[in-house]
Amino acid sequence: MSQTTAASSTAPDGVPDELRAVVDRLKTEVAALHAELPRNALVVWTAGNVSARVPGADLMVIKPSGVSYDDLTPEAMVVCDLDGTLVEGDRKPSSDTAAHAYVYRHMPEIGGVVHTHSDYATAWSARREPIPCVLTMMADEFGGEIPVGPFALIGDDSIGQGIVETLRASRSRAVLMANHGPFTIGASAREAVKAAVMLEDVARTVHFARQLGTPVPMEQADIDRLYDRYQNVYGQ
Amino acid sequence: MSQTTAASSTAPDGVPDELRAVVDRLKTEVAALHAELPRNALVVWTAGNVSARVPGADLMVIKPSGVSYDDLTPEAMVVCDLDGTLVEGDRKPSSDTAAHAYVYRHMPEIGGVVHTHSDYATAWSARREPIPCVLTMMADEFGGEIPVGPFALIGDDSIGQGIVETLRASRSRAVLMANHGPFTIGASAREAVKAAVMLEDVARTVHFARQLGTPVPMEQADIDRLYDRYQNVYGQ
Amino acid sequence: MSQTTAASSTAPDGVPDELRAVVDRLKTEVAALHAELPRNALVVWTAGNVSARVPGADLMVIKPSGVSYDDLTPEAMVVCDLDGTLVEGDRKPSSDTAAHAYVYRHMPEIGGVVHTHSDYATAWSARREPIPCVLTMMADEFGGEIPVGPFALIGDDSIGQGIVETLRASRSRAVLMANHGPFTIGASAREAVKAAVMLEDVARTVHFARQLGTPVPMEQADIDRLYDRYQNVYGQ
Amino acid sequence: MSQTTAASSTAPDGVPDELRAVVDRLKTEVAALHAELPRNALVVWTAGNVSARVPGADLMVIKPSGVSYDDLTPEAMVVCDLDGTLVEGDRKPSSDTAAHAYVYRHMPEIGGVVHTHSDYATAWSARREPIPCVLTMMADEFGGEIPVGPFALIGDDSIGQGIVETLRASRSRAVLMANHGPFTIGASAREAVKAAVMLEDVARTVHFARQLGTPVPMEQADIDRLYDRYQNVYGQ
Repeated sequence: MSQTTAASSTAPDGVPDELRAVVDRLKTEVAALHAELPRNALVVWTAGNVSARVPGADLMVIKPSGVSYDDLTPEAMVVCDLDGTLVEGDRKPSSDTAAHAYVYRHMPEIGGVVHTHSDYATAWSARREPIPCVLTMMADEFGGEIPVGPFALIGDDSIGQGIVETLRASRSRAVLMANHGPFTIGASAREAVKAAVMLEDVARTVHFARQLGTPVPMEQADIDRLYDRYQNVYGQ
Repeated sequence: MSQTTAASSTAPDGVPDELRAVVDRLKTEVAALHAELPRNALVVWTAGNVSARVPGADLMVIKPSGVSYDDLTPEAMVVCDLDGTLVEGDRKPSSDTAAHAYVYRHMPEIGGVVHTHSDYATAWSARREPIPCVLTMMADEFGGEIPVGPFALIGDDSIGQGIVETLRASRSRAVLMANHGPFTIGASAREAVKAAVMLEDVARTVHFARQLGTPVPMEQADIDRLYDRYQNVYGQ
Repeated sequence: MSQTTAASSTAPDGVPDELRAVVDRLKTEVAALHAELPRNALVVWTAGNVSARVPGADLMVIKPSGVSYDDLTPEAMVVCDLDGTLVEGDRKPSSDTAAHAYVYRHMPEIGGVVHTHSDYATAWSARREPIPCVLTMMADEFGGEIPVGPFALIGDDSIGQGIVETLRASRSRAVLMANHGPFTIGASAREAVKAAVMLEDVARTVHFARQLGTPVPMEQADIDRLYDRYQNVYGQ
Repeated sequence: MSQTTAASSTAPDGVPDELRAVVDRLKTEVAALHAELPRNALVVWTAGNVSARVPGADLMVIKPSGVSYDDLTPEAMVVCDLDGTLVEGDRKPSSDTAAHAYVYRHMPEIGGVVHTHSDYATAWSARREPIPCVLTMMADEFGGEIPVGPFALIGDDSIGQGIVETLRASRSRAVLMANHGPFTIGASAREAVKAAVMLEDVARTVHFARQLGTPVPMEQADIDRLYDRYQNVYGQ
């Protein structure tokens, strides 16, 4: 899990010509996906960020730091290598870039990462309490409870390590980082955004259910059946 | 209640010519009604679905599976028979098609069905707790408490059976399926969407009322009077 | 307080010519004010209604019954006399017309009435609990607590009587009708809509305050000072 | 802290010619920032106000009193001196002008002030309870808990004094005035609006966290590290 393993494949001279088309397509896609965050009430002001891995390269497309959601055009997106070094773009990358980069270095099957401070998910994070799986929609989407990751400060690989270790021990595509907020992953950036939207929805519904009593637990066998079916059958 | 009763009238060769105009009109109506779901905050991402029975045929118009609400044009809607077999459309029908089909086969007076995971209604579902009738608006619209249906897995007729059995034992046009979410019915798809919107509104208001104490119960005779009046007098 | 006192001044032959301009202006204003109800999340579907008294006549402009907020054009508004009889319009007047009419007959200083089922205000109504005055904004706007009116069924003057009796015993321009929802009044329809918006805002804020403890009460003398100042000084 | 210190530099003859360009730019900016208040659900109706100090002069640009958010064009903004006397504009300045003016007179480093009654922050205000710092986002943005200011009536310098004394004793850029609501400050009006948005977000998230238990406290050393980093590193 050392940072140097991945560092050998950085692209210090910018985006290679043969990746230009795919990088431009991802910038458009990542910019559009950022619009889903305020639309689904997952972020305020400039908080939150989406990234996409550039397939076949040690690069990712990510949001610049501290920029308004109104200004998140494809051109504003930046490209970093998987150590988080800026490769292309006029602005500093998101302050959460190191955590995204760590996930891409250590989870090769992952194509997208999302971080928000969505309110209900973050409330569970503040109590360091996993969200119990009491809804068929949670079983479908997350295959069980939403786990809590460790408390970790920004500035080194602590957050990235906490995300990867927690998600490897779970079927969930979402982790609640303690006193911080959720990170979600997916095969693509779109799948990671979907997970962020669904996470906040179930965090909110289970919060409501718990406010007036105790939700009825679901059998593990039922959770397993729903998860298997949804991962294999749903959608087009 | 066997599936084969209805199966004899499927239309394996597509929509008959004499139904073309009515099916196209229903596709337009069902597409427009889907826009009411996110507008009223009843769904996130691709969750939730509306269907309409094709009058005079064993057919229904329903949402395709896993498609964004932004892409729900009339052309995207699919037609199924009342066993849930695709009759017309480029995409798979909603994964909840079997439940809609079961309702149409067993409740001939019903012209529309809606399923959502709207948050407050689903929170009551997760506790398997009926919503008590403590508002005049609930008496008007639902004639009493909102009942809870059984826990049922997707994949066979269990969900459909649970909906029909619960609604037949109640005046309510809404049922809270355990750990899952609400289904609503109506004489038309529009009436079923109205019921879904009103259900979430009363689920939320009674949730708020209960958070700070105990709502004052209403007399059954008053509930009956309000229900009778509203069903017979209200609207144009 | 009998209905016949006012009934002598109805206009069975339609809107008199000399009132045409003012009635048309009020239809435009009342239609526009209805848009404030969904915009401020006070209503769902077709619930809720706004009316305006026609100055110098025993007439009011009000919403038709069961019509979508998207279709509330000036032309759709109807005119009734102060017994609630339709004087002009293609549709039935709101099912709450009798309550509006009663208020206009018995409170000659009132120019506008609004009824909603806004969720937080209605939650207090369901518990039949007044909203305590613990915010400077409540003191400014309502001069004290928001009172609860009696439980009353639709169909005669019971609701109107309950509104008028409760508001006459209070400085508040809003009343929480038991198990039903709020009615607000004002010198104009716009003022009544403002009161409906402010009511839901304070109902929500005090709900939140009470969820985690006990709001600190305000001194009656401070409430009085704020109310006097706001009623005399604020605005243009 | 007397009002007369600043009063000597008023501009009774209007905006000086050499400040015309900067004042017009600030009117445009302050008008645009007001749109962020309803967009972020911080205000209803005409409540809430934003002001900006005119650099190099004892003047500020502020919202007029009692005007709808739809009508807040640059031309509608008014200019006051730092005693709150109207210097330019067709309408009365906001009823909270005296509090804004007091902050500018006594905190020379401050360029913008915002006041709202945003619901969650105001709920903490009504209980006179500081918001504990249990989120990394709070540590980043506010450097610790959000403090409560005294109960103060409008009409003299009491509110301004309460704001300044409370904020001077804290790293927070937000104060919860007792039974009233929040005021936020910033180096610019935009920074003060950002603080108002972030405040409501953390007020809401910590409210949710507290509803189902006790958030896990953060170490003071961690709060300090996050605050130092965010104030020095974040953004472009």
